[in-house]
Amino acid sequence: MGAQVAIVMGSQSDWPTMECAAKVLDDLGVAYEARIVSAHRTPDRMYEFGKGAAGEGFKVVIAGAGGAAHLPGMLSALTHLPVLGVPVQSRALSGMDSLLSIVQMPAGVPTGTLAIGEAGATNAGLLAAAILALGDPALSQRLQDWRAARTASVGEVPQG
Amino acid sequence: MGAQVAIVMGSQSDWPTMECAAKVLDDLGVAYEARIVSAHRTPDRMYEFGKGAAGEGFKVVIAGAGGAAHLPGMLSALTHLPVLGVPVQSRALSGMDSLLSIVQMPAGVPTGTLAIGEAGATNAGLLAAAILALGDPALSQRLQDWRAARTASVGEVPQG
Amino acid sequence: MGAQVAIVMGSQSDWPTMECAAKVLDDLGVAYEARIVSAHRTPDRMYEFGKGAAGEGFKVVIAGAGGAAHLPGMLSALTHLPVLGVPVQSRALSGMDSLLSIVQMPAGVPTGTLAIGEAGATNAGLLAAAILALGDPALSQRLQDWRAARTASVGEVPQG
Amino acid sequence: MGAQVAIVMGSQSDWPTMECAAKVLDDLGVAYEARIVSAHRTPDRMYEFGKGAAGEGFKVVIAGAGGAAHLPGMLSALTHLPVLGVPVQSRALSGMDSLLSIVQMPAGVPTGTLAIGEAGATNAGLLAAAILALGDPALSQRLQDWRAARTASVGEVPQG
Amino acid sequence: MGAQVAIVMGSQSDWPTMECAAKVLDDLGVAYEARIVSAHRTPDRMYEFGKGAAGEGFKVVIAGAGGAAHLPGMLSALTHLPVLGVPVQSRALSGMDSLLSIVQMPAGVPTGTLAIGEAGATNAGLLAAAILALGDPALSQRLQDWRAARTASVGEVPQG
Amino acid sequence: MGAQVAIVMGSQSDWPTMECAAKVLDDLGVAYEARIVSAHRTPDRMYEFGKGAAGEGFKVVIAGAGGAAHLPGMLSALTHLPVLGVPVQSRALSGMDSLLSIVQMPAGVPTGTLAIGEAGATNAGLLAAAILALGDPALSQRLQDWRAARTASVGEVPQG
Amino acid sequence: MGAQVAIVMGSQSDWPTMECAAKVLDDLGVAYEARIVSAHRTPDRMYEFGKGAAGEGFKVVIAGAGGAAHLPGMLSALTHLPVLGVPVQSRALSGMDSLLSIVQMPAGVPTGTLAIGEAGATNAGLLAAAILALGDPALSQRLQDWRAARTASVGEVPQG
Amino acid sequence: MGAQVAIVMGSQSDWPTMECAAKVLDDLGVAYEARIVSAHRTPDRMYEFGKGAAGEGFKVVIAGAGGAAHLPGMLSALTHLPVLGVPVQSRALSGMDSLLSIVQMPAGVPTGTLAIGEAGATNAGLLAAAILALGDPALSQRLQDWRAARTASVGEVPQG
Repeated sequence: MGAQVAIVMGSQSDWPTMECAAKVLDDLGVAYEARIVSAHRTPDRMYEFGKGAAGEGFKVVIAGAGGAAHLPGMLSALTHLPVLGVPVQSRALSGMDSLLSIVQMPAGVPTGTLAIGEAGATNAGLLAAAILALGDPALSQRLQDWRAARTASVGEVPQG
Repeated sequence: MGAQVAIVMGSQSDWPTMECAAKVLDDLGVAYEARIVSAHRTPDRMYEFGKGAAGEGFKVVIAGAGGAAHLPGMLSALTHLPVLGVPVQSRALSGMDSLLSIVQMPAGVPTGTLAIGEAGATNAGLLAAAILALGDPALSQRLQDWRAARTASVGEVPQG
Repeated sequence: MGAQVAIVMGSQSDWPTMECAAKVLDDLGVAYEARIVSAHRTPDRMYEFGKGAAGEGFKVVIAGAGGAAHLPGMLSALTHLPVLGVPVQSRALSGMDSLLSIVQMPAGVPTGTLAIGEAGATNAGLLAAAILALGDPALSQRLQDWRAARTASVGEVPQG
Repeated sequence: MGAQVAIVMGSQSDWPTMECAAKVLDDLGVAYEARIVSAHRTPDRMYEFGKGAAGEGFKVVIAGAGGAAHLPGMLSALTHLPVLGVPVQSRALSGMDSLLSIVQMPAGVPTGTLAIGEAGATNAGLLAAAILALGDPALSQRLQDWRAARTASVGEVPQG
Repeated sequence: MGAQVAIVMGSQSDWPTMECAAKVLDDLGVAYEARIVSAHRTPDRMYEFGKGAAGEGFKVVIAGAGGAAHLPGMLSALTHLPVLGVPVQSRALSGMDSLLSIVQMPAGVPTGTLAIGEAGATNAGLLAAAILALGDPALSQRLQDWRAARTASVGEVPQG
Repeated sequence: MGAQVAIVMGSQSDWPTMECAAKVLDDLGVAYEARIVSAHRTPDRMYEFGKGAAGEGFKVVIAGAGGAAHLPGMLSALTHLPVLGVPVQSRALSGMDSLLSIVQMPAGVPTGTLAIGEAGATNAGLLAAAILALGDPALSQRLQDWRAARTASVGEVPQG
Repeated sequence: MGAQVAIVMGSQSDWPTMECAAKVLDDLGVAYEARIVSAHRTPDRMYEFGKGAAGEGFKVVIAGAGGAAHLPGMLSALTHLPVLGVPVQSRALSGMDSLLSIVQMPAGVPTGTLAIGEAGATNAGLLAAAILALGDPALSQRLQDWRAARTASVGEVPQG
Repeated sequence: MGAQVAIVMGSQSDWPTMECAAKVLDDLGVAYEARIVSAHRTPDRMYEFGKGAAGEGFKVVIAGAGGAAHLPGMLSALTHLPVLGVPVQSRALSGMDSLLSIVQMPAGVPTGTLAIGEAGATNAGLLAAAILALGDPALSQRLQDWRAARTASVGEVPQG
C-alpha cells in the first residue's frame, strides 16, 4: 500500500521541525512521503501536488511553513482531503506570524492547525493517525497503545 | 445510523458560534449531536463524555470554548478520536486567549484548531466532513459538490 | 490603452476597503480593473490571473485580503510584476492576522505591504501611481500636484 | 501533620521553575508535596488528584504548566480548595500562551495566577503561605519576618 | 463580626466590574467592605489602608484597577495578607495593560491575579471565600453548595 | 548611467540587514548607492536626501530602520518616488515596533513595506528591480531568470 | 508673555484627544498654542516648526499623532526642547502602533511618552506644567493645589 | 550644588540598564544621585523618597523598573516633580510588561516614558538634561553641542 500521509513543507529548513511528524508516523506504522513544496517559490509544484494529492492515494496532508505561511491554506483550497497545518517557528516573531497565517482561514476552506514548532509537528502526525484509525482498527489499537504507553511513562514525583 | 459528529461547547452562549458547524453538517447530510459540556463547570460530564465518545459511536469531536478554553484540549486527552477545536471570540481579548489555549497543546495530545469565531465553526464542520468522507464516497462527492458550488458562487467583479 | 493596474480582492466584502484604491486612481487618471479573485475559494482563477497578469498588460497588481490573507503573497509568487498588498481589517484580530500574513513573506517573493484598512488601500493606489509615474511624466506631474494639493489642504489650527 | 500544600506540575521539565515554590515553602517551614500530574497525558491521575486533594488534607494547591496550560484551571474545577496557577515560560511564545490559558478562567472557577516563570513559582509559595498563615499565627510571624528580612536586604546604592 | 474581605478599587468607574465580587460574597454570606483607594490619586490613603488592613481585621484583600494598574501590587507590598488582583478592562488595550501590570510581580511580593473584567471580579470573590473557608467549615459547605448548584444549572443541550 | 536605487538606513548597525538588498541588486545588475541617513540623528541630511532624491536620478528608494522607525515614512513624505521600507529587527520587541512604525502610514503617504529583517531587505531589492523592470525589458528578463533559477533550486525531498 | 507650550498634532482629527492637554493647561494658567503640523503631509511645516520652536519662545513641545506616529520623534530630532509624545488611539490597532512608533526612540533623541488617548493628552499637559514649574514657583503652587484638589475629590466608597 | 537628578531603580539588577542614564548625565555635567528604591520590597523607602524628593533639592526623577513596574508611576503619585520612566527589559515578555505598566498611567498622574532598555535610560538622562537646560543656559549649550557632535559622528556610507 502506498503512502497515506503526505508531509510537505515550504523549505528544507522546515525539516528539523517536520521530521517530528515523520517520526511519530514511523512509530505508529503509518506510511508517509515527505516532500518540499513551496507555495511561494514553486507555485506550479504546489498546484500539481494539491490537485493530485487525492489521486496519488494520499488520505491526509500535513503541511508546515513559517512566516507568511501560505502552504497549508492553499493546499486546503486545492484538495478536499483533510489538511493539517504546522506553524514553523519563525525568527523575528517566534511563529506568531506562522500561526495566524495558517489558522485564520475563511469559512469554507478549513486547515486543522497544530501548535507552533516541534510539538505541533508531532501532533500533526498523531492527528493524521487518529483520522486514518477511523477506518483501520489495527492502527486504532496501535494509537491507543501509544497513548497508554505515554501515560504510563509519566513519573509520579519530579526529580531534583 | 447514529450521529457521527459530536458538537460540544462550554456554554449556551457559545451556540451562536457553534451553530455554524451544525449548519454546514446539515448541508452535507452528516448526522451530529450538539451538547453543552463545560470543562470547568461540569468536569464530570466532560470526563464521561470524553471517555465514552468512541463507545457512543462518534467518529469526530468538535469542541468550542472561549477565554481559558480547556474543553478541546481536555477532550483530546480523554479520547483517541480526532478532536477539532473552535476558539470562541472572547470579550476582552477577542479570542486570542481562546486560540492560544486551544492550539498550543503539548506533543502527544493533538487538537486540530480552526479560526476564531464563526468561520472556525463552519470550518470545523467541513473538516469533520472531510475526515468522514475518507470512508464514505457519497459524502466525499457531496463535499466536493459543496466546494464546487461555493467556488462557482464567487462573483467576478465587486459590486459598488 | 488598457488598464495598467489590477485591483483584486478575496471577497465582495473587501470592496468597501479596496474601493479607496480605485478612488485615488480615478483621481489621478490611472486606468484600472477591479476583480474578485479568491485564493481559497477560486484557486484556479487566482492561478490564471497571476500567470496572465503581465500578458493582460497590467503593470502593477494591488491585492487586498483579510484574516489568513494569502492572495497578495500568492500573486507575488505567480507574477513578476510588482504586487502591493492591503491587509483588510478582520473581525476578531483587527487586521493583525491580515498584516502578518501579507508582510512576512520569505526572501525571494516580495509583496509591498500597506497599512491595515482604508488608509492602506488608498496608499496602494498612490504607490501604484508612483511606480507608473516613473515611465509617465504626465502622471508624475498629476501625482505631484495631488500631493501638493493635499499639503495645501492641511489647516494651521485645530477647530474646536 | 501532613503536607498542607500540593505542588503539582504537568511535566518533569516544569520542575526547575516549580522548585522555586518548594524552596520558599522550605524557608517558611510549610510542609508540601510535589507531584507530576499532567492534564493531558494523565487525565485520570488529574481527576483523582483534584477530587481527592481536600480529602488528602491539602489546604492549597499550586499548579504549574506551560503552553496550552490546562492543569491549574482543571484543578480549580475539580476541588473547592484555593488553586494558585504558575505559567511556565514556553519556548515559542515565552509564556504568554501559558499565562492566558491559566488566568482567563470563566466566572465560577477561580485560579489565582502568578507571574510567568520562576518569580511566579516563588510567589505561589508565598501566597500559599499567606493563606495558611490566616489560621497559623506562628507561620504568619515567620512570613512577616521573611518579608522584613527581604526588605532589609535591599541595598541603598547600586554597585557598578 | 466585622468584614473579612476588603474590596478596593482605584476609581468609582471600576465599581460596575468590582460589584461582581461583592455580589458573590453576598451570595455566600461573607462580610466585606468596598472602598475606593487609588494608588495614584490617593497614595497616602493606599499606604494607610495597606499597612492597616490586617489590623482592621481583614483577612483577604481584593483589589481592582485598570491601565497601569498598580493598586493590587502595591497592596501586596504593604500587607502580608493574601491580595487578589482584578484587571479592569481598559479602553485602548482591552485590559492587557491591566493584566500585565498586575500579574507580572517580582519574586517576593505575590498578587493572585484573576481574569480581565467581570469574570475576574466574580472569581476574586470566590477565591476569597475559598481561602476563608479553610478556617470556616460552614462557609466551606456554602461554597461547595454554590459550586454544586452552578454545575447543576448547566443545560444538556444548546437552545436555538 | 547613475544609480537607480538608493539604499538608505538609519545607522551603520542596519547594514548587515540592508546589505541583503544590495546583494540582490548586484545579482540583477541594478546600480544602487548605499547611504546612512538617520531621521533622528541627521534630520537635515534626511530632508536634503528626500527632497533631492528624484533630482539625483534615483527611481526607487529603499529605506531600512529599527525601533521607532521613522526614516521610510518620512522619506515617503519628502519624495514622490516609490519608497520601500524594511523593518530592521529590534532588540527588545523583535521588530514588531519597527514594522508598525513603517507600515501603518496614514492615507496619502505610502510606504511599501517588506518583512522584518534580512528577508525583507532582499525582497526590497527584488521589488525595486520589479518596478524598474517595467521600463527595462532586459532587467525584466534578468528578474524572470533569477526567479526561475530560484524555483529550479528547490529540492524535491527534504534531506535528513 | 508668549505661549510656553506648543501643542501640535498631525491632523484635525487628533484634536478631540489633544484638547485634553489644552484644557489642563488652561486650568493651570499656562499659556499655550495649538497647531496642526503633519509629519507626513506637511514635512516642511514640521521642519520649520521644529527648528524654530526654541526661537519662538516655546519651552516644551507636546506632540500627538496616531498610527505610524512620526511627529513626536521627528520634533525630538529637530529641537533640543523637551518633547512629550501622545499616542492617539488608532482605528485598527487601538493605538498600540501609535505607542510603539513614539516611545521606541533610539538612544540620543528622547521623547517623553504618555498613555494612549485622552489620559495621555491630559498627562502631557500636566508634565509640561511640572517642567515649567521648576522655574516658576507660582505655577508650582498651582500644580500642587491642582493635585491636592484631585486627591480630595476621590470618594471613599463606591456608589452603586 | 547638590544633585539635580535622582536616578532610582527597583533592584541592583536594573543598574546595567540605568547606568546609561548616569553616563549621559556625566557627559553633560549634570549632578545626579543613583539609589535603589523598590516599590515592592521597600515601599516605606519609596514613600519617603517620593515625598522628600523635592525637599532634597532634586529637580527631575528618573525611575527604572521591569515586569509589573510600579516604581515610576508611584513616584509620579508621590511627587510633583517631573518623573521619567524607563522600562527595563524583562525576561519572559521582553519589556512589553514593563512598558505598559509604566506608560499607561491614568489622567492626573503623568510619567514621561522612554524606550525599553538601555536606549530608554540614555534618553531619560538626555530628557532630564533638556528639562534642566530650560533654566540653565550653559547646560543648554552643552546639550546642543552634544547633539551636534552626535550628528557629526554619523558616517555617510555603511562600512561592509
